[in-house]
Order: sequence, then structure tokens, then C-alpha cells
Amino acid sequence: MKIQSTMTGNKENFQPIHNNRINLFVCGPTVYDDSHIGHARTYIAFDVVARYLKYKGFSVFYLQNITDVDDKIIQRAAETGASPRLLARKFEQRYLEDMHALGVTNVSYYARATEHIPEIISQIERLMELGFAYETESGIYFDESRFQDFGKLSHQSVEDLKKHRIEPDPRKRNPGDFSLWKKRQDGVEVTWDSPWGLGRPGWHIEDTAITEVHFGAQYDIHGGAMDLIFPHHEAEIAQMEATSGKKPLVRYWMHTGFLNVKGEKMSKSLGNFTTIRDMLQKYEADAFRFFVLLAHYRSPIDFSEEALEQAQKSLERIRQAARIIEEQLETAPEPGSSLPELLEPGIDPDVAEAKAKFLESMDNDFNTPYALKAVFDLVREVNRRINEKTISRKGLQDASEQLREFGEILGLGFYATGKKPAEKNITENLIELLIEMRQKLREKKEWQLADEIRARLSELNIVIEDAKTGKGRYTQ
Amino acid sequence: MKIQSTMTGNKENFQPIHNNRINLFVCGPTVYDDSHIGHARTYIAFDVVARYLKYKGFSVFYLQNITDVDDKIIQRAAETGASPRLLARKFEQRYLEDMHALGVTNVSYYARATEHIPEIISQIERLMELGFAYETESGIYFDESRFQDFGKLSHQSVEDLKKHRIEPDPRKRNPGDFSLWKKRQDGVEVTWDSPWGLGRPGWHIEDTAITEVHFGAQYDIHGGAMDLIFPHHEAEIAQMEATSGKKPLVRYWMHTGFLNVKGEKMSKSLGNFTTIRDMLQKYEADAFRFFVLLAHYRSPIDFSEEALEQAQKSLERIRQAARIIEEQLETAPEPGSSLPELLEPGIDPDVAEAKAKFLESMDNDFNTPYALKAVFDLVREVNRRINEKTISRKGLQDASEQLREFGEILGLGFYATGKKPAEKNITENLIELLIEMRQKLREKKEWQLADEIRARLSELNIVIEDAKTGKGRYTQ
Repeated sequence: MKIQSTMTGNKENFQPIHNNRINLFVCGPTVYDDSHIGHARTYIAFDVVARYLKYKGFSVFYLQNITDVDDKIIQRAAETGASPRLLARKFEQRYLEDMHALGVTNVSYYARATEHIPEIISQIERLMELGFAYETESGIYFDESRFQDFGKLSHQSVEDLKKHRIEPDPRKRNPGDFSLWKKRQDGVEVTWDSPWGLGRPGWHIEDTAITEVHFGAQYDIHGGAMDLIFPHHEAEIAQMEATSGKKPLVRYWMHTGFLNVKGEKMSKSLGNFTTIRDMLQKYEADAFRFFVLLAHYRSPIDFSEEALEQAQKSLERIRQAARIIEEQLETAPEPGSSLPELLEPGIDPDVAEAKAKFLESMDNDFNTPYALKAVFDLVREVNRRINEKTISRKGLQDASEQLREFGEILGLGFYATGKKPAEKNITENLIELLIEMRQKLREKKEWQLADEIRARLSELNIVIEDAKTGKGRYTQ
Repeated sequence: MKIQSTMTGNKENFQPIHNNRINLFVCGPTVYDDSHIGHARTYIAFDVVARYLKYKGFSVFYLQNITDVDDKIIQRAAETGASPRLLARKFEQRYLEDMHALGVTNVSYYARATEHIPEIISQIERLMELGFAYETESGIYFDESRFQDFGKLSHQSVEDLKKHRIEPDPRKRNPGDFSLWKKRQDGVEVTWDSPWGLGRPGWHIEDTAITEVHFGAQYDIHGGAMDLIFPHHEAEIAQMEATSGKKPLVRYWMHTGFLNVKGEKMSKSLGNFTTIRDMLQKYEADAFRFFVLLAHYRSPIDFSEEALEQAQKSLERIRQAARIIEEQLETAPEPGSSLPELLEPGIDPDVAEAKAKFLESMDNDFNTPYALKAVFDLVREVNRRINEKTISRKGLQDASEQLREFGEILGLGFYATGKKPAEKNITENLIELLIEMRQKLREKKEWQLADEIRARLSELNIVIEDAKTGKGRYTQ
């Protein structure tokens, strides 16, 4: 199994630190607002990573942080008059609901920054003792110039780094020095006591404090979106490797590509975002997951309604094939019956080929688009053999079991006809059909039947509003 | 909030080590066979503990070990000709399925013993260095006489302890010395390399190795069934406190009482057991959970079919009341309507009283029978007020929300029969209406529209079968 690490740019053989146990950390949300579908892309990608690693027999400890103290939270709280703590709890809860709705179910533990303050302070103290950090009037800063490896993840030289100007502040030793602890300012009430007085942690330090508590100074996989490489993940490397003296902090750095809209990255600051909640009002969660998995996790993907509808259709094709296989299995003769049966000693050859291709693709840095191609190939071949009546009961059974397994690894409900959104779609389709029928009846002057449809729908609390065009709208 | 600890026998104020974060460890199964409902009782009890702690705002890291190397596994594998590793994986999978079926969903991480071998060896090495362990021909043993506190959890004196004869072995220094590492014997193939040659870990050491990795040398709550106090939990204390020099290993020791059948403890060895799977063939998971929660977690409970049927009936009474509240809410006048409304400034007094009693009971060492009594009191009072027409819309709403919250804390589906069927009903109603319309169109010889309905329904995978009566049936 190979994983491409951002650190080397190469696909490397996967070798966990603790034999069969894998420690996986992915940067979680800053809980000041609802998450958008760009975030969902990242969390679905790592949900599939965790699912596949578990399928391969690894025990996966999947840790995610919750940034529940931050400038954005404090600012949003000030704007809305809410308490920063309650605001953070509210959006954390909504985030967890969103993840549940998306089928992102493999995180072992969500670690809140505010519940790791003693560990954050301890890490800063050690950095101070070792001379990697210094105090100013405004807080504690990491001295970038003291850490030789700074820039190694984003492949930037010292000259490159000088071009960045993070938080210009004349009191800092180097322009790129980043904040570890922010001292209390007027009006900012979210503070903890520390050896440097009241204050709150910087953003970067919470991640290494949390991973040190749960994983120690070194672990297997760190994931996150591409835009976190610099400065966030560089800062994590600097903090932890400087503290522990051990290298590397992380064996494999996995970064997801952006979700773009018309070529631009979806982001809160650009204002071109769709929240997960809004998206799920229109589309089934599995259709969005399918859309995400049609691209490799490192590639950018372009979000559009057309792309999502296309994904839904492709998913439905697989589901349709799954239904046909189950129907065939119900009618196919039982083994041992008097009807002839094609005897196959092992697994059906088409199923075996699809499985081999699927695993080969997933082993190759989680190449989900190729894995999905293997699913489609299987579905097409089995369909053809059903039509040609050249598939045995054993072949159908193998195909059925394999499709279920593929679905579980990818987190896609290939056998989910009973799920809520699908249920909603069928209701909507039926209502649309009734409204169309009523319109056609009115055109044919069948007033009585047209009125009956309206009245009966009304009994079900579905109200048809006749627009001037004569085409009905309805409210439910 | 108070928790009774087995160590002191007293209810103590609950004070976690890391402020708001709680590290909870519960001994998991030895995966050589299906778990029985005695185990289920323990895991349901701690599922409710985790749910309530989360409800109170704590972050709970709930760790459970999986004993996947053990004499019982090796013996069962030898009997059945299976590989011990595959046998363990199979029963681990079935255990996780059982927990899922029981709604036991709050374990953060399941840690396999075989995936912590280096950490087990490291702990034994430290015990050797510190003089707490010694080597014999058969393995490494903990020297009970070197650890002054031995017996403190089970409240046994040195004299008491001498009465126990664990693994009589003339090569041991004291009869009570327990095995940390078992050297390879003939025919036993499950081994790992160690400083003492090929072998495998003893049972007790896996737990402290696992908790040390994930929690460190000290943590908040250790749970398990009552029969694990001695020697298992005494051994854990000895191992970890001797290794780290820190006391105590655990702040709160919580032990569940036995599940008895006709006065005898249910156990594999007595042969009087019912597996979780078998029980779930006959009873709803929530009925079993209700039965478990009707007793305090420390008390023994007597399992019988009558008791379970009684629990199911009690659960149904609450569900019935919940349904009546929802129905009343649908018909009760909206606030601001012309009908008189009893204005209440705060939460409904009966709801407030029930909530206060519920929380007081749960805060008192998770007293679920008293908490359930508060639920029943609420249901009875609201029911009475509905009959007497003395409850306002606001009162109904408060009661509805509170019942949902009680259900979530206890993991009981008070609204289990609520939502899905309603959704299905509307779909069914719409299909029936379309089929009727088609029939009427056929009577009016509007063949084209009738056929269109059939074709469009077929697109939605709804097939109309025309029976001889002319009335359509459909399959979906």
C-alpha cells in the first residue's frame, strides 16, 4: 500500500509506527459558523481513508481537534451578542450533526482546544526553556529563525519565507514568527491563567498539544486541506519537533485539493460557499459523497449542480444494477435444484477482477475514481451476463456480496433505497406527477377529476397554488 | 455530581483530573465466543454513564480493550481447528455488531491487546528493573509481596489474600504472584519475541499497557463487572502504580452487579447463559436496556422472560404517552390564536420538577431507577392534565422536548415508532391516489393519460399490476 506524502511528493510504501495501530489526525473545524461543502469534501475523503485502513485490518485511532477558541469565534460572538463559549458549543453541535448526515462516522475522538489548555501551556513552557520561543508585550512567539527545518513541508527556502508577512508586529524578532500565546487585550474575555498572565492559545499550538496528549511526539498520518500546509502545518512541525527533538512529527502528510466553484476555491471569505445543510436540502448525502469520490483526494474538484446531478445518476445506475442482481437472486434456482447450474470452484472471475482492480486502486494512494471505475465495470459485466443468461447463482451471489463490500468501504449506500432523501424524492416525484395530471385533466375539461386531485392532496396537507400560467406550485 | 468508588465504598464528589476531559476505561470482552446478556448489562450501564457525562458537558474519551490473545481463545481455536487470530477477529466483529444492535455507541476506541505488545513488554521491563517482577522457567511474574497496597480495592488483608491460590506453581515466590508474560509452551503458536524469548502477555498487563498509552499513568474512571475486582483490577493497580510510582491509578472505580438467573450469576462456565444475539431474536434492544436501567448499576438484577416483558410494557406506556402528547400538539391551538392559552413564563412546572428529579437521581451515582421514576411521574401528570384539559400548548411542548432529552440520555427510543412510518404513509397515499386516478381515467377511456401514469410510476420503480377486479395492486 502506498501513500503520497506532501513532505516528499512521492508515493511511499505505507509503514505504520506501531505495527497494526494507526494514529491519524485531521484538522477539525473552527466552530464559529456552519461548515461548507469544501470542508465536507475533506472530511469525506478522510472518512474513506479511515474506512479503507480498517478494511485492510488496521486499528485506526482517528483524532480531530475542535477549535473552540479563536479570533473568529470571539468576533462572531461580539457581533451577535452571544457568549463565545455557547456560540462555539452550538456550532460544534451543528458540525457533528452535519458529519452524521454525511455518513462521516469514523472519528474516534473530537478534542476541544479549550480542554487542553494545561497541555498547551506545558508545550509553550518547554519551547521557552529550549530557546525556541520568546515573550513580548502581546504574547509568546515561536522564533522561526531558531528552527532550521522551517519551510520543509511547503518546500520553501528562507528567501521564500521572507516574502510572507504573517501578523506584522515590530515587537517580533522575525516577520514570520507566529503566536503561541496571546495575552489578554481589552474587551476580550475568553482567557485562561498562564505563567504569562491571562490570555489564550494561538491557533497552531492547539494541534500539537492535542496530538502530543493522545499520540505522543510522533504519529502516522496528518490530514487536512491543501491550504493548511502553510503556515499551519509548518508551524505544527516546528512546535513539536523543536519540543521533542524527534523527527519527523508525522510520517505521511495527506492534503486534499480544493472544492472550486467556477474555478475559484470555495471559502467563507470569498462568499461563494454553500453550507453542508443547504446542500443536503437539495441532494442526497450519498450523491455528494459519490461526487467527491469521483476525483482523487489531492485533485481540485469543480462543484456545480450539473456535476452533482450527474453523480446522483451514476449512483442510481449502480443501485439499479444492485436491485436487478437481488431480483435475479430471488428467482434464480437454489443450488442443488434440478436445474443446471454453472459450477464455479472459486469466486466469480468478473467479481475477482473487479475486486483486484478496486484494491489495487485504493492501495495506490486511495485512488477512488479508479476504484469506482472497477465498480462500474463489475456492474456492466454482470448486467450483460444477466441479459445473456450466462451468469450462475454463485456468480450473482459473489457480485451481490462484492457490491455490498465496495459500498461499505466507500461509505456509499448501494443498497439504500429506503433512505430518507430517496424517500423524499419519491414523494416529490409523485406530487409532481399528480400536479401534471391535474393540469392535463383541466386542459381536457375533466374538472371533476382535477378537483378531486386537489382535494385529496389537500387532505394530505399538500396545497396546490395555481399560478397564472396554469402550472401548479405546491407547498407541503 | 457524586460517584461511588469501590475503593472507598463512599459516594464522592466527582472531580476529573483534566478539568472537562474525562478518561474512562472499561474492560472489554475476551473474543472467543459470543457475548451474553450479563456482559450486555455492563456495557449498557457504561453507555449510559458516558451519555450522561456528555450531557453534563464533559468530553469523554471512552476506551475499551479487546482481549484477542488468551488461553480461552487458544483453547477454542484448537478445539475448532481455526486459527486463533481469525477466531478472535470473527468474535470481535460479532461483539461490535452486538453492541451496535444494543445501541451501545459511545466507545471512542477499541484497543486490541495484540496491537500493544511493544508497550506491554516495555511495562514488564520497567517492573523487572524496579524489582517488582521476576523470571522463572515458565514466564515473568509480578511479586505480590513487593507491592504494599495489594488488596486495597477488594479490601483484603494479607491474611485474606493468602487464602487465594492463583495458578499454583512451585517456581513462584508467592502463591498470589500473577503472570505478566507466559513463555512459549509446546503447541502454543501465538507468540511474540521478547527479552525473555518467544511468548505472550498475561491477561492483567494488557489493560495497564493500553491505558498507559492512551491515558498515561493515571485516569478518571475504571469500570467493569463486579467479578473483575479481584484479582484483575487489583493486578492493574499493582502493575501501574508500581511502574509509575504515582497513586492512584484510577480516581473512581465503578463496578456493575451481576445479572442473575434464578439467583445464580449468568456465566459461560455455569452454562446458564443467553447470548445477546439470542435475546435480540425475541426482544427489542430498548426493552432490554429498559430492564437493565430499572436497577442501579451496582445492584444485581434477575433476568427472566417475565421481567423483560414487564420492561417492554413499561417502555410502551412511555411511548404511548409520547404519542398522545404529539397528537395533542398537532391539534392544540397555535400561540397567538384567539383561543385562551395558559400563559407560563418559564418551563412547565411538572416538566421542571421531573427534570430536576431526573438530574438529581443521575447526579447521585447514576441512579437510573429513580431517573426512570421521574420519567413516569412526568408522563402520568401530563396524561392527567391532558384528560382534564388543564395543559397548555407550551406545557405540551415542554413535556415533548423533555421526554426526547430523557430518551437521549438513557439511550432509549421513546419516540421510536414516530417519524419514518409517517413519511411512508404519505408516499403510500400518493401512490393509492394515482392508482385510483388511473382507474377512473380508464373508465372514462382516457387511455393515454392512464398509460402515462403507469409509465411514469414505472420510472419510479413502482409497478402496477392490474388484477382481475380492475383494481390495481402495486409493488415498490
